[in-house]
Amino acid sequence: MHFVVDRRIFVENVQHVNKSISSRTTIPILAGMKIDVSSAGITLTGSDSDISIETFIPKEDDENEYIDIFQEGRIVLQARFFVDIVRKLPGDKIEIFVQEQFATTIRSGSAVFHLNGLDPEEYPVLPKLSEEQMFQLPQNILKNMIHQTVFAVSTQETRPVLTGVNFEAEDGVLTCTATDSHRLAMRKVPFETTSDDLIFSNIVVPGKSLNELNKILTDTDDPVDVVITDTQVLFKLKNLLFYSRLLDGNYPVTKTMIPEQSKTDLELPRKELLATLERAFLLSKEIKNHVVHLRVLENNEIEIMSVSSEIGKVKEKVTCEKVKGEEIRISFNGKNLIDALKVIDSDHVYIRFTGAMSPFTLQPTDTDQMLHLFSPVRTY
Amino acid sequence: MHFVVDRRIFVENVQHVNKSISSRTTIPILAGMKIDVSSAGITLTGSDSDISIETFIPKEDDENEYIDIFQEGRIVLQARFFVDIVRKLPGDKIEIFVQEQFATTIRSGSAVFHLNGLDPEEYPVLPKLSEEQMFQLPQNILKNMIHQTVFAVSTQETRPVLTGVNFEAEDGVLTCTATDSHRLAMRKVPFETTSDDLIFSNIVVPGKSLNELNKILTDTDDPVDVVITDTQVLFKLKNLLFYSRLLDGNYPVTKTMIPEQSKTDLELPRKELLATLERAFLLSKEIKNHVVHLRVLENNEIEIMSVSSEIGKVKEKVTCEKVKGEEIRISFNGKNLIDALKVIDSDHVYIRFTGAMSPFTLQPTDTDQMLHLFSPVRTY
Repeated sequence: MHFVVDRRIFVENVQHVNKSISSRTTIPILAGMKIDVSSAGITLTGSDSDISIETFIPKEDDENEYIDIFQEGRIVLQARFFVDIVRKLPGDKIEIFVQEQFATTIRSGSAVFHLNGLDPEEYPVLPKLSEEQMFQLPQNILKNMIHQTVFAVSTQETRPVLTGVNFEAEDGVLTCTATDSHRLAMRKVPFETTSDDLIFSNIVVPGKSLNELNKILTDTDDPVDVVITDTQVLFKLKNLLFYSRLLDGNYPVTKTMIPEQSKTDLELPRKELLATLERAFLLSKEIKNHVVHLRVLENNEIEIMSVSSEIGKVKEKVTCEKVKGEEIRISFNGKNLIDALKVIDSDHVYIRFTGAMSPFTLQPTDTDQMLHLFSPVRTY
Repeated sequence: MHFVVDRRIFVENVQHVNKSISSRTTIPILAGMKIDVSSAGITLTGSDSDISIETFIPKEDDENEYIDIFQEGRIVLQARFFVDIVRKLPGDKIEIFVQEQFATTIRSGSAVFHLNGLDPEEYPVLPKLSEEQMFQLPQNILKNMIHQTVFAVSTQETRPVLTGVNFEAEDGVLTCTATDSHRLAMRKVPFETTSDDLIFSNIVVPGKSLNELNKILTDTDDPVDVVITDTQVLFKLKNLLFYSRLLDGNYPVTKTMIPEQSKTDLELPRKELLATLERAFLLSKEIKNHVVHLRVLENNEIEIMSVSSEIGKVKEKVTCEKVKGEEIRISFNGKNLIDALKVIDSDHVYIRFTGAMSPFTLQPTDTDQMLHLFSPVRTY
């Protein structure tokens, strides 16, 4: 194996693939990154057995020539060193060649590194997925859907299936849902599919995988093909494949949890409500469940309050755009509301209560494709 | 106690004082910040018993009126909550008043906080230092001196006196020295003094204190008065007093460690040498003592090398401006050189060797008021 590659594009690809590599792996070869050079270009592969990433750097495209290939071949290099090394190399070009015993030389500018490589034959082969179930979304929309739901996954391993985001498709609409059983975040979006009447459910992608994927997705409308199988999901970008295992188990049916009617409706300015809850959180962070109390006052105002007998008390009023329905006093986890308000883009939000002991919803005013649901907290 | 204060100036002062407060204190009252309101203004005090900071916000200055004082008085508030609260308050003004039982109300915009205060009578009184031994420096010069030495203090508690920076004064020159016994950083500067012939030595200020002080010092030439006593040092800024205890013990005599002659002199470009050593550190960080090998080649070049039998090897050449004297091969802790090169401003540096087994020096080419000394590492 022997090639010279443009440093910028190589570093970018190495850093993408590195997101799938864990130094704490129990399988030694997976601490490495695989470099596979063919006449067409360079394929880089990484995997922690939950996530696998494969990128391809073409020899050239319409505008640029990226690689000089002198000899094809393959090697696996310890990612922990290799990634830092290529990032810090001084030149615009990087030369890499492999000699006997997997001895690998990396040269750039005045710097020469010799690394002990690993046997590429030991590296596991990534699965070939059947592409029967597939749909397409623009990157920015997928990125946003993940951002707006993944924060609500459970961090507890007691119900592993809740540590993922549930993907469902029906009638040309994709729904992503995350819940830790105290709060729920849901986002819908229409999608394009190549298969007629694509329907699937209970496709639960680990939150950790989606967080890594979101670091790679860009804010462009370049398409992502999403391939669904029973055990894996594959996100196909241009020159990048992102595989994730799916979580086992039955995701809870969440549709029936969402109340259809409400008794008290508020319309509120999002930023003011968020700032008020963040101030209340300065005290409520010390309290079990981060409890905050909300009550509707007269004159279209609500009061947010948090009390800790040890530290003190905070009280603040927020003026609503609209208040409709019954008076209410309710207590909830203020941090959960903060998390949801942060991923909403609109200037105003609706909060709809169905009673002091029933779940309530939070929604942006500018779209009905997003919904957040919260359980109240009993305080007596 | 009852006042209304401009939020911006109050937050700035609260954050300064907070640098001296530790939530892990064993003396409960020291987890609080003392607020003392007199007709002249507000004094804020914090202390972790190693460092104490006192700031004064005047009622007004030539340009602005900062405070409306309705009632004088004192209170101590839990810093952990108080600091975050004032930072996040919504209004331009903050009203604070104390009622019975130290119950304190903080009001700003729509937000009202009630905090359980602590008894200000319990708060320790800061010492009044004798100002017999005192000198003055511009803030930016003191800040720079600290920055260029404090990184070299020892982090080991085995010789506590080495965890501080030694201040010495003689003949109108202040010398700061830090060493962990493997490397030494020294910086000199002429200073102004009010006392004739100010001479002192073995004034060892904890590195931790100086790091906190440096977050407060600005890059202006506003003066700092430095007051020296046997057990404490006081840095007096406009409206801010920074006290630190001194370290016990005899600081080693370092002057005699610095070689007066050399056998091999190099002049090198600083940034290239730093980048080369940082690349070598990618491997040497895995090696005991972060060992790097340097040898002088022909053609005014040196070679930097680092080897780990497990991982591999890195080699790189750097072209010197000048090479004078004997050939040499020497091994040293590369990380120590990196640290020193980072605090040097000049474009070029001198390295002077006196033999493969003797300490060597690193100095900027543009001033002789700074010197770094390193022990070589035996590699056999």
